[in-house]
Amino acid sequence: MTDKLHWEDFRPGDVAIYGPRHVTREEIIAFAAEFDPQPMHLDEAAGAASLMGGLAGSGWHSCSLLMRMIADGFILNSASMGSPGMDEVRWLKPLRPGINVRIRSTVLETRASKSRPDTGFIKMTFEMIDDTDAPVTTMISTLMMGRRSPGAAP
Amino acid sequence: MTDKLHWEDFRPGDVAIYGPRHVTREEIIAFAAEFDPQPMHLDEAAGAASLMGGLAGSGWHSCSLLMRMIADGFILNSASMGSPGMDEVRWLKPLRPGINVRIRSTVLETRASKSRPDTGFIKMTFEMIDDTDAPVTTMISTLMMGRRSPGAAP
Repeated sequence: MTDKLHWEDFRPGDVAIYGPRHVTREEIIAFAAEFDPQPMHLDEAAGAASLMGGLAGSGWHSCSLLMRMIADGFILNSASMGSPGMDEVRWLKPLRPGINVRIRSTVLETRASKSRPDTGFIKMTFEMIDDTDAPVTTMISTLMMGRRSPGAAP
Repeated sequence: MTDKLHWEDFRPGDVAIYGPRHVTREEIIAFAAEFDPQPMHLDEAAGAASLMGGLAGSGWHSCSLLMRMIADGFILNSASMGSPGMDEVRWLKPLRPGINVRIRSTVLETRASKSRPDTGFIKMTFEMIDDTDAPVTTMISTLMMGRRSPGAAP
């Protein structure tokens, strides 16, 4: 499938937007009940009494929704080989029920793998933004991506 | 509830172990179907053909399981006020169906908040380890935690 995105298709400065996705109270509570049952993620009154100031989704729910949105947005149509991890995951605003979120991706840098000629690395930021374009959750990621032309000069 | 853990109860060098938890194929696939539907997280054959070398849970599933284990382990019995985020999230080994995972926490440093006398910060590492004590997923976290004695000298 030559039309899949490969490493060569990502250039520093590239910006893309994925989504939107509507966030519901039901999914916030369901995620929290399974993975992060802190009261501010489960109950409006407990959220209001917390630093969150109201019901707020788990930070890990934000990250998981972001993952789903970038998967649908480009990863499932790419030669992605996964990621070794994330840096600077920041939970900047509460994930509120009823908001619509989008993901803004920005390519920071790309480099070819020295040890694997079929692989390149793409360092990018992912920002989950709300209806007012304010960042809810941000992170810096390094993706491993297959090269269309293994070993060629970039 | 004076027996809850507060900021004063965390000291640099403290190590604790939480879990174990058994990881099932069913939950790996269910999480991936909802949040990270990449083939290596959904299907054994696709996993075997990937860098993962077999069915492997999403990195965000590892993070979410880690969250649940530290919630049950100590956060729900603490004066935790949440976290601004995570640094150096690393997915070091595939999350395999059938393994048992535990969490090892290590306190790196603690400091009182300058602006909020009722709050302190705790910087710690969380490591998800498998049956052989090998790290699967690791991260550095800063927790905000209520102080038992607001404003007192630490």
